[in-house]
Amino acid sequence: EKKVLSQAVQDLIDYGCPVETIPAGELTGCGRRVRFQAPSGHHFELYADKEYTGEWGVSEVNPEAWPRDLKGMETAAVRFDHCLLYGDELQATYELFTKVLGFYLAEQVLDEDGTRVAQFLSLSTKAHDVAFIHHPEKGRFHHASFYLETWEDVLRAADLISMETTDTSIDIGPTRHGLTHGKTIYFFDPSGNRCEVFAAGITTIRIISRSTP
Amino acid sequence: EKKVLSQAVQDLIDYGCPVETIPAGELTGCGRRVRFQAPSGHHFELYADKEYTGEWGVSEVNPEAWPRDLKGMETAAVRFDHCLLYGDELQATYELFTKVLGFYLAEQVLDEDGTRVAQFLSLSTKAHDVAFIHHPEKGRFHHASFYLETWEDVLRAADLISMETTDTSIDIGPTRHGLTHGKTIYFFDPSGNRCEVFAAGITTIRIISRSTP
Amino acid sequence: EKKVLSQAVQDLIDYGCPVETIPAGELTGCGRRVRFQAPSGHHFELYADKEYTGEWGVSEVNPEAWPRDLKGMETAAVRFDHCLLYGDELQATYELFTKVLGFYLAEQVLDEDGTRVAQFLSLSTKAHDVAFIHHPEKGRFHHASFYLETWEDVLRAADLISMETTDTSIDIGPTRHGLTHGKTIYFFDPSGNRCEVFAAGITTIRIISRSTP
Amino acid sequence: EKKVLSQAVQDLIDYGCPVETIPAGELTGCGRRVRFQAPSGHHFELYADKEYTGEWGVSEVNPEAWPRDLKGMETAAVRFDHCLLYGDELQATYELFTKVLGFYLAEQVLDEDGTRVAQFLSLSTKAHDVAFIHHPEKGRFHHASFYLETWEDVLRAADLISMETTDTSIDIGPTRHGLTHGKTIYFFDPSGNRCEVFAAGITTIRIISRSTP
Repeated sequence: EKKVLSQAVQDLIDYGCPVETIPAGELTGCGRRVRFQAPSGHHFELYADKEYTGEWGVSEVNPEAWPRDLKGMETAAVRFDHCLLYGDELQATYELFTKVLGFYLAEQVLDEDGTRVAQFLSLSTKAHDVAFIHHPEKGRFHHASFYLETWEDVLRAADLISMETTDTSIDIGPTRHGLTHGKTIYFFDPSGNRCEVFAAGITTIRIISRSTP
Repeated sequence: EKKVLSQAVQDLIDYGCPVETIPAGELTGCGRRVRFQAPSGHHFELYADKEYTGEWGVSEVNPEAWPRDLKGMETAAVRFDHCLLYGDELQATYELFTKVLGFYLAEQVLDEDGTRVAQFLSLSTKAHDVAFIHHPEKGRFHHASFYLETWEDVLRAADLISMETTDTSIDIGPTRHGLTHGKTIYFFDPSGNRCEVFAAGITTIRIISRSTP
Repeated sequence: EKKVLSQAVQDLIDYGCPVETIPAGELTGCGRRVRFQAPSGHHFELYADKEYTGEWGVSEVNPEAWPRDLKGMETAAVRFDHCLLYGDELQATYELFTKVLGFYLAEQVLDEDGTRVAQFLSLSTKAHDVAFIHHPEKGRFHHASFYLETWEDVLRAADLISMETTDTSIDIGPTRHGLTHGKTIYFFDPSGNRCEVFAAGITTIRIISRSTP
Repeated sequence: EKKVLSQAVQDLIDYGCPVETIPAGELTGCGRRVRFQAPSGHHFELYADKEYTGEWGVSEVNPEAWPRDLKGMETAAVRFDHCLLYGDELQATYELFTKVLGFYLAEQVLDEDGTRVAQFLSLSTKAHDVAFIHHPEKGRFHHASFYLETWEDVLRAADLISMETTDTSIDIGPTRHGLTHGKTIYFFDPSGNRCEVFAAGITTIRIISRSTP
């Protein structure tokens, strides 16, 4: 098992954050997981080992540029990208993610009193790996987001979401986000959860503040 | 100074790789740098602190979607993305970057004997942060690469590079790379160095092997 | 003067449509114009000679791919494309445009009684050169539309329209039209008229019927 | 039968260009054709009636934005756009197409003596409906061209053309044409004929002269 997971677990415990261990294999293809709860009320799990299956439809040896024989949006969803979560105790959550887990604050929204009401946290050149917006109730989910390669793909997703035979509906978009500048569409999947597909937006290290309107 | 730099320095020394320290401020806006030489012959410098100037042309507070009043490609170059370097001792270089510095092997090319002749190393969802191709001479430079947002931007760069009043010339492209699947153009800047501008390509964790033709 | 204008004038008169002639030069750079009123209440003018000024910012001799030194959307608006007009007497207007002026019906919307309530008329591979939607009042204007090269340009226009210092506001979009499948945004210019910028959509000869929802 | 075909035939005969009539139905779904030979040596056929089959994969009544269940480039080829032909007697060919058939000269290349060695002729806002380049041998074919919606589609075509199981090969591109500014790729189809797929380029009325290098 990778040393990085053991180190993260130790860092969480040292910080005073209780963890729960779930053995390897409990989730198919996944190594040991370590679960903790953020002050915002959300449960997170860390893992270091995951079965690698490659990209669907192309070989990992001399792969072609894209999979043949796919339909609809099958070729377009590049990766799971981030979640936006609603909850309280943003400051404590911010401290946990930045001091213990190595995230940095890429973008924030401050209200008229200077209180942070939205925090977008990143580990790399992405605009966010996880984002939190203040909400009085703990542990709420806003959306899960998938990255597409182009703004054309976002429109194609909008076309597909709107077709009669897909049990999906558009929430907002296509449009450009104010925060992160992503080119985006929110939609509801058949189970009723809000999802996002987006392209572009900020893809370099930025530290941005916004004020509430 | 960030703990991560001290840790990296210690890891390099423990691995047997000599380091040289350059004090903060020797390079304007840059914190302490630690220099080491990879087995391929190239010198690298690590730093943890850098003056943050933000994106040119927009505020860091309530920024607009893109800078106004810019011309040519000024709005299009998103970030320095990676370098491709030529040199020998690829295996030892691979071990240094993966065992000590946390890179993983995203893509490789094997010759008919199964020897790795190209290694593309990444730290995140990028197709490469640094790449090495075997060359009998140590410490050679192939190109430095800048990320553009779209394939349209790549063509626009090609137009601009080809205009008579820019002292630049196209080397290869526009085309799609076999490795990384980036949409790319190589060109020579006025000083004669090869540069690249590219968009898209692989932007998720992939582990790909290719064979030489 | 071109024979085609004389022929069109004769065809209008033969059809019973009165015409009014406006001499060359009354409008700077424009040849003789012939004005007529469609049954929908709108006035149209035909002309065959127009001063040709070329594309702004590039030479007509060995032009570069696009103008340098332009800002904002200056490079993006390719051409005036079409108007959408509101008025009554759609059938009589349809007959005038198709029987006398050579348009064909590219797309129509029929209500539940089979009455045409929208007619999109084209002279070429464009989805429409002029469109009419039924309205009880004669001679109303809905929007004038400008063609952009890409869906990216449409988003860029949306960004620009929304910036604080432009006295413009978004009406609808960015989205895809049901009719014509254009990728579009409607906005209000500083004088309050509705305009459109759009890209793509149907660009080949199509004959499409739609029913009202 | 449409009056426009009879008129064109009469105009050709009046101009001194012999015509040959081919009866309706000789080509399935096509009305009466009238064949003539241009001074460049090429045979052309005019027709006014053609069976309309609509876009493959979508209904002509309330069509969706694009066909579902298609693969490869099936969704991308929008229309046959133009041909480039090689032959001699460019001036006489130019006069026939502009004086009799209503084309205009959208773009030309002049050699150092001011002789036109390339002429691109258009009937609308397209950069060309037919183009001729000087060649000492009459009646040669250079390529037939198909219009794609975007520069992304051009790259996707390049990917597909290069895949091992398609019996096609790239001739030139992807690149931008000097003439017409189209974003293009030339390739050879399995029968060995050169074809083109392209997007964008000039889509408004332009009159451009170029000099040979």
